[in-house]
Amino acid sequence: MRMYDVIKKKRDGFSLTKEEIDFFIKGYVDGTIPDYQASAFCMAVFYKGMTEEETANLTMAMANSGDTVDLSRFGTLTADKHSTGGVGDKTTLIVAPICASLGCVMAKMSGRGLGHTGGTIDKLESIEGFNTALSPEEFFSQVEKIGIAVVGQTGNLTPADKKLYALRDVTATVDSMPLIASSIMSKKLAAGSKNIVLDVKYGSGAFMKTPEDAEGLAKEMVKIGKACARNTTALITNMNRPLGNNIGNALEVQEALEVLNGEGPEDLKEVCLALATQLVSVTKNISAEAARRLTEDALYTKKALAKFKEWIVAQGSVTPDPVFKKADHSYEITAPCDGYILSADAEKIGVCAVILGAGREKKDDTIDMSAGIILNKKTGDKINKGDLLATLYSCNKSSFENAEKRFLEALEFSENEPPKEPLIYKVIK
Amino acid sequence: MRMYDVIKKKRDGFSLTKEEIDFFIKGYVDGTIPDYQASAFCMAVFYKGMTEEETANLTMAMANSGDTVDLSRFGTLTADKHSTGGVGDKTTLIVAPICASLGCVMAKMSGRGLGHTGGTIDKLESIEGFNTALSPEEFFSQVEKIGIAVVGQTGNLTPADKKLYALRDVTATVDSMPLIASSIMSKKLAAGSKNIVLDVKYGSGAFMKTPEDAEGLAKEMVKIGKACARNTTALITNMNRPLGNNIGNALEVQEALEVLNGEGPEDLKEVCLALATQLVSVTKNISAEAARRLTEDALYTKKALAKFKEWIVAQGSVTPDPVFKKADHSYEITAPCDGYILSADAEKIGVCAVILGAGREKKDDTIDMSAGIILNKKTGDKINKGDLLATLYSCNKSSFENAEKRFLEALEFSENEPPKEPLIYKVIK
Repeated sequence: MRMYDVIKKKRDGFSLTKEEIDFFIKGYVDGTIPDYQASAFCMAVFYKGMTEEETANLTMAMANSGDTVDLSRFGTLTADKHSTGGVGDKTTLIVAPICASLGCVMAKMSGRGLGHTGGTIDKLESIEGFNTALSPEEFFSQVEKIGIAVVGQTGNLTPADKKLYALRDVTATVDSMPLIASSIMSKKLAAGSKNIVLDVKYGSGAFMKTPEDAEGLAKEMVKIGKACARNTTALITNMNRPLGNNIGNALEVQEALEVLNGEGPEDLKEVCLALATQLVSVTKNISAEAARRLTEDALYTKKALAKFKEWIVAQGSVTPDPVFKKADHSYEITAPCDGYILSADAEKIGVCAVILGAGREKKDDTIDMSAGIILNKKTGDKINKGDLLATLYSCNKSSFENAEKRFLEALEFSENEPPKEPLIYKVIK
Repeated sequence: MRMYDVIKKKRDGFSLTKEEIDFFIKGYVDGTIPDYQASAFCMAVFYKGMTEEETANLTMAMANSGDTVDLSRFGTLTADKHSTGGVGDKTTLIVAPICASLGCVMAKMSGRGLGHTGGTIDKLESIEGFNTALSPEEFFSQVEKIGIAVVGQTGNLTPADKKLYALRDVTATVDSMPLIASSIMSKKLAAGSKNIVLDVKYGSGAFMKTPEDAEGLAKEMVKIGKACARNTTALITNMNRPLGNNIGNALEVQEALEVLNGEGPEDLKEVCLALATQLVSVTKNISAEAARRLTEDALYTKKALAKFKEWIVAQGSVTPDPVFKKADHSYEITAPCDGYILSADAEKIGVCAVILGAGREKKDDTIDMSAGIILNKKTGDKINKGDLLATLYSCNKSSFENAEKRFLEALEFSENEPPKEPLIYKVIK
């Protein structure tokens, strides 16, 4: 088999066999297929797409290109939640303990933040003592004992995806539905859970800008999951505005704790309940209505809060009731006019949090755990000139000027109340 | 400027500016733009094409990527002929002396053969003493004196095209009209002639399989030539059968001499007169009718033959009347049935000549100058079982069995006389 022929076949719009896709992935990882053939191939896929079968085969080939996590010892109740990334998205901190408290096995690997989106691992590290780098033995033993553990990615997981994504990133071949879907799903397959719920976000703060694009991606990923024998469901959720009011690592853990205490903002609570409902439904093979009753019960009776405390202590937190260091400085942004907030560009607000020190521009930047933003007003809210819009937090006082400028640039105001957008656009099963 | 943005712009179907194309070619040649970005770019061009302006800019950027030949000292009468490659195509050996005898300045660089197509430089080297590696001084001095010199490519001509073609060859991005056209024309521009006639071949022995594809390529190249201030004309000619009867280096020079002596096969003579007519017409800016009268006169009064002899002697031939070493062995192929030759696949016959030793499979193979084929019957000819179809020549007797098998595989026979195909499909001005 020659890579030339594989490229040409895809270029001319034909479907590739499993053998051809395996040949490509194997050869690309071991270096016998060079980058210049892989990039020409990706560009051909950009134009010609892939069938469901091809996409599933590509996903499996990438999932099997390196280490995989074997969760079979935990039976069929292993459950994973994945978000395509957003601003203020702390749902894992809430959904994971809800589901674990209901018997789902949450043996999860999460990522760090880059650019305007945060990462669960960074957020968890704002809890004093929390260890995100458990050994495999510690990881499995904790899951065995309390049904939940969340760690950073370890081992040589999906090297094909890592190499291919880095190449696509510099050859304008990222925006291809089968390549995006297979990239995400290969990591989920390698992570080993039997049941998967995907939170596919659309809007100004998301990779997918429209609900239609997000739906296309969600459908593609759900198909892949099913083709690879994983129970997979996706929610399409709104990221035209940040989720919840807090952005920044420690601030987000605090807000997650508010929700687990039955308080906190409605939008965040609703997305978490919806995600947990779907995950419990597929994992326990019960109706969504029954799963909803269970998840609400777990949240409002504080079973989920108890599981959260058990989890963080098991994973090294010095206390079940963590306290967080306040940022050295804060700064209030007030409304420049009367009216309504017409829109708040979530990506720009995410960038604003990065400026304050809450995120990374480059992979090896360090994070100020206390930095971030608490929103006082959100899209659709009525405002009067001088009202508090948001408070900025940072240990670097000199960042406020630029951050305020960026924050105000992210907002649009109007005289009339804007129409409400739904929080959850669709469920894809 | 970033190559990422150039790829993305082309990917999304937009036209590139001269600056963007120059940036790509310059960066690709100096190594700052890696192969994997160039191949993704070429695949995007494969799908999205290029405008006339983009193609002309790409051609000029490639032509100027290395050395260029400055023929300005010879004024506006410099003339070049280019064939897209065929089997039995010895037209340069006839057209160049015809045109030189009429005052065109033929300061020409030619290539060597590879695969099933031969090369003018190899053919000329079958003449004892002929030197295809003149120094620039010798080259210019000979052109000055007798108006004709043909040498192999020297210097660092069109390095961008060389590098890009090698990449396209392994990434399935060769078959793109603007990339093919700019590749050929960049070399013609760098070679310096003011007037260019292109022989774009179609058919089984040519790169372009149909007259329509050949016409598309011809139009593209003529447009480029004109956009770059060269008087350019193209002929679309038939390569569904070999041109003339002789295939193989010394055999082809002998056949060219037959034509220059007013003899030789009609098809070869006609294509040569048509090419010479166009080249004389554009170079001297006279009508095709007037040019045709001149070229016929040059051929039939043997002015062209005299120029040929002057040329080869100037370039080192030991005699104006070269004699050629016969191949050690010959082998006759006879007709297996009665009827007509319906078709003769020129590419397969070219491969047959390579098997006999007349060509190269790889760049550094050596050539048997005496090897080749003389066709006794061609497409459309009536045959009786046992008639001589062709004689094979080689110094390697053991090649005959395989060569005969391949030769007969190239032929199709029919009971009825097949319709005649035109030799010259179109002239594109």
